[in-house]
Amino acid sequence: MNLQEYLDARSILVDRALDKLLPAGKAVPRTLDKSMRYSLFSGGKRVRPILALASGEAVGAPPSRVLPFACALEMIHSYSLVHDDLPAMDDDDLRRGKPTNHVVFGEGIAVLAGDGLLTEAFRVMAEAALRPGQDRTAALRAVQEVALGAGAGGMVGGQVADIEAENKKPTKALVEYIHSRKTAALLRASVRAGALVGGATARQFAQLDRYGTAIGLAFQVADDILDIEGGTAKTGKREGRDAELHKVTYPAAVGMAKAKARARELMTEALAAVQPLGERAEPLRQIVKFVVERAVQP
Amino acid sequence: MNLQEYLDARSILVDRALDKLLPAGKAVPRTLDKSMRYSLFSGGKRVRPILALASGEAVGAPPSRVLPFACALEMIHSYSLVHDDLPAMDDDDLRRGKPTNHVVFGEGIAVLAGDGLLTEAFRVMAEAALRPGQDRTAALRAVQEVALGAGAGGMVGGQVADIEAENKKPTKALVEYIHSRKTAALLRASVRAGALVGGATARQFAQLDRYGTAIGLAFQVADDILDIEGGTAKTGKREGRDAELHKVTYPAAVGMAKAKARARELMTEALAAVQPLGERAEPLRQIVKFVVERAVQP
Repeated sequence: MNLQEYLDARSILVDRALDKLLPAGKAVPRTLDKSMRYSLFSGGKRVRPILALASGEAVGAPPSRVLPFACALEMIHSYSLVHDDLPAMDDDDLRRGKPTNHVVFGEGIAVLAGDGLLTEAFRVMAEAALRPGQDRTAALRAVQEVALGAGAGGMVGGQVADIEAENKKPTKALVEYIHSRKTAALLRASVRAGALVGGATARQFAQLDRYGTAIGLAFQVADDILDIEGGTAKTGKREGRDAELHKVTYPAAVGMAKAKARARELMTEALAAVQPLGERAEPLRQIVKFVVERAVQP
Repeated sequence: MNLQEYLDARSILVDRALDKLLPAGKAVPRTLDKSMRYSLFSGGKRVRPILALASGEAVGAPPSRVLPFACALEMIHSYSLVHDDLPAMDDDDLRRGKPTNHVVFGEGIAVLAGDGLLTEAFRVMAEAALRPGQDRTAALRAVQEVALGAGAGGMVGGQVADIEAENKKPTKALVEYIHSRKTAALLRASVRAGALVGGATARQFAQLDRYGTAIGLAFQVADDILDIEGGTAKTGKREGRDAELHKVTYPAAVGMAKAKARARELMTEALAAVQPLGERAEPLRQIVKFVVERAVQP
C-alpha cells in the first residue's frame, strides 16, 4: 500500500463530498457561503476525516458509509481554526500561506462562518443518520462522540486551557491536560466515530479506541516538535510560532529527547492496538508512522 | 389556565434540567464552565424551550420527553447572544442589565463559551435520542430541524444578512429575508422539534409547523415594535438600540401601523393553525397572544 496514494484518494472523496454537503443556494447569504468555503477548501490535509474513513475500513466498512461523518469532522476542525485565528485568540494573519478568514471577511463574518460550519456539521451527521439502512443507534453514538470530542470537555475546553496557560510554567501535567483536549480529543473522536458508523464490534471498538487515543496524543507531541525543529517547509507555519505565543509545549515541559521518545512510544502503542485487525488496518498503521516519523527523524 | 404560572413552572423545569445537562467536573476548565453558565443563567425568558415543551404537550407528550431538546434550544439561543454581543458584531456591553459575557470573561473566552454551548447542545440532543424508549428517527429529525434552524440557512445566515444590511435601505423583502432566518428559524425549529419528539402525527406536525412559522415571524415584528415604543422596562434593553445600530426593522420598512397590523395577522394565523388541536394547545395560544398583544397594545 502506498500511503500518499491512499491519502490523496481519500482527500478527493472528502473534498467532493464536502462540496455537496455544504448548504447552498438562496437560503445562505453569499458572503457566508464564501467565507465557510474559503476556510474549508484552503488546503487542509483532511487528517480527521481520513482517520474516520480508515477506522471504518479497518472493520470492513466502505468509505461511503462513513463519509458524511468524516466530512462533519473536517467542518468542525475547520471552524476551530477560523475561531483560533481570531485576534481575540491566537491572532494569526496567515494559515497555510493564505490570509486567515477574518483578514479576508472581517471578524464578525469569521465568527459566524465558524458557527455555521459547526452547526452544519451536526446537520450533516443527523441527515446521514437518517439515511435508509443506517443503524440509527450507532450513528447517534457517533454524533455523541464527536460532540464530546469537540465540546467543553474536549477541544473547546482544551482551547480555553491553552489560552489560560500562556506564560505559565509548562509542567508535564499541564501540557497533557491541554493536549488531551485541544487536539487529541477530536482525533480520537474521529477514530471512534468511524468505528461506530463502520459497524465495529465491541472488541474492535476497544482496539480502535486505543489506537485513537495514542495517535491523538502523538499528533500533538509531533506538532510541538516540528514547531521547534521542522521549519516552515514541513509545517506550513512559521518556525517557533508556539514559543512566540508563549504556548506550553511538550518539549518545553520534558525536553526534546524525552518528547521524541514519548512520540515513538505512542506510535508503538497505536501499532500494537490495531495489530489484531490485520491487513485492513494497514492505512491506520502507515498514518501513525508518518505522523511520528517525520517529527522524530533527523 | 394562567399563562404566567405556566411559564414559571416550565422555566423552572428548564433551568433545573440545564444545570444537570451542562458538562461539569474536572474535564471542563473552570473559566469555561463559569462563562457558559454566566450567560445561560442570566435571566432569559426561556421562550424557545417553552415553545418546544408546549408544542409537545399540544400532542399529548409529557414535558419530560421533550425537555432535553428544549434545553438544547436554549443553549443554542444563549450561544447566539454571546456571539452577537461581541465587539466584532453588535458590540453590546449590557444584556438584561448585566455586563455581557466578553466584558466579564474577555473576547477569547466568550467566543469559546459560545462554541461550547453550541456543541454541548448537540451532545445533549444525541444523548436524549439514545435514551431507552426514545424513537430514534423522530429524535434525529428533531436534531436535523434544530441544525437547519440554527445553521447557515437559518439563524447564522440571518445574522450575516443582518450585519450586511446595516445602513442599507430597509425594504420589506430585505427585512423579511433577515427576520425569517435570524429569529424565526430557531423559534419555528423549536415548535417543530417539540412536535417531532412529542410524537405528532403528520397532520398535527403540519398544524404545529404553521403555528411555528407564524409565531417565529410575529416574535421579531413585535420585538422591532417594542424596540421603538416599548421602553427599557418592557424590553430590558435600551430603547432605540436597533436604530442606533442602523438595523433594518419591520416598522422602518412598512411603517408602524402596518407593522402592528402584520403582527396581529400573524397572531390570527397562529391561533387558527392550532385550533384543531383543542384544549391541549391552550399554552401555545396564550403564548402567541402574549407576544403580540404586549407589542401592539398602547
